[in-house]
Amino acid sequence: MEVKVVRDIMKINDNVAASNHEMLAGRGIVTLNLVSSPGAGKTSLLEKTLEILKGEIAVGVVEGDVNTSHDAEKIAAHDVPVVQVNTGGPAGGSCHLDAGMVKEGLAALELDGLQLLFIENVGNLICTASYKLGEDRKVTFVSVTEGEDKPVKYPLIFRNADAIVITKTDLIPHLDFDMEKLYGHIREVNPEAPVIECSARTGEGMDTWIAYIRQTSEDVRAKRGD
Amino acid sequence: MEVKVVRDIMKINDNVAASNHEMLAGRGIVTLNLVSSPGAGKTSLLEKTLEILKGEIAVGVVEGDVNTSHDAEKIAAHDVPVVQVNTGGPAGGSCHLDAGMVKEGLAALELDGLQLLFIENVGNLICTASYKLGEDRKVTFVSVTEGEDKPVKYPLIFRNADAIVITKTDLIPHLDFDMEKLYGHIREVNPEAPVIECSARTGEGMDTWIAYIRQTSEDVRAKRGD
Repeated sequence: MEVKVVRDIMKINDNVAASNHEMLAGRGIVTLNLVSSPGAGKTSLLEKTLEILKGEIAVGVVEGDVNTSHDAEKIAAHDVPVVQVNTGGPAGGSCHLDAGMVKEGLAALELDGLQLLFIENVGNLICTASYKLGEDRKVTFVSVTEGEDKPVKYPLIFRNADAIVITKTDLIPHLDFDMEKLYGHIREVNPEAPVIECSARTGEGMDTWIAYIRQTSEDVRAKRGD
Repeated sequence: MEVKVVRDIMKINDNVAASNHEMLAGRGIVTLNLVSSPGAGKTSLLEKTLEILKGEIAVGVVEGDVNTSHDAEKIAAHDVPVVQVNTGGPAGGSCHLDAGMVKEGLAALELDGLQLLFIENVGNLICTASYKLGEDRKVTFVSVTEGEDKPVKYPLIFRNADAIVITKTDLIPHLDFDMEKLYGHIREVNPEAPVIECSARTGEGMDTWIAYIRQTSEDVRAKRGD
């Protein structure tokens, strides 16, 4: 009797991710996968982003968290389609979204008319680096309060990033923080991705982040021939 | 032909953890497993702790990181025995220490004469909650910059904690942060663990943290009959 062994769990994930991507692209939706440590400020930045893009781009959100629907509730208050995917379980839960979870989430989301989809991943700098979800771009967030060395301590998630967003820049005056050192560490692992500095709290740098979203949407659509 | 399937990877881990614990306890060493998000300030707090305990308690450190030996180098500068365990690999690496990795790390550490061992885990609020390493106590760190909701979003690591340390309290005046809300969320998942507030930067609250370490060492030793 032959025993079949599934050897490549990542290959299976990549196939589901490709099918998610095909479905989303077929609907003309541009998708960004947002990854970071817990508490790096992704949700706050997303809320500001929704305020700014309101009336210009039709946005939907998939919220990934181990537990609670706090983030989805915050997003829903901005009157955009949102679905919460909880990865938790009694043994601790999954530390990342995978393509299958996103597929389930998308089945519960109203996609008609959407132009842009944000997938806010579970807060984790390690395993989220390895799982494609069906996105057009992966954006890694790092807050200034985490220190300058995260890119070299968690290299894959910074290497795989199409863009890197440095958050909470309003706190720099209150920290022992060296921005040049952070850039040096980013460039060690990722020499080319655009780096955006911003603060959701003061609004500083939000224009650069929004410009990145607009440009990325155009680039992805142009390449697809939409 | 029978195909054997390893069903309970956690059970295997727990067995190795129990053996680590037996070895450490046999040498009279009290062990703390320190867990948090990336950048919550564990290493900075540990450095301050080593300064204060110098000449009083003989401390050793196991440093867990995906990549780099930055933290071990910082600790080594304090002239204490330290070993770096890197969990990284081309596919991203392991997002947590397991008992087997700690066992290997301990084999490379000079244990003679040590009284207290800190294991600084990989920065991750999810999988680090599930893997016992051989510690007497697990301490979960959360920085005020991460917001108030981490205990309910990542419940297991706060539920499993023997103590919870709130770090970077010097930054509170510069944040939209509500300490009472954080306590509320902590108590939702863990009604009893001591909660310690401190700042490695200003030294505020360090006396409470050091008192916890002294008391814990005494309690563990008394229970063991050392």
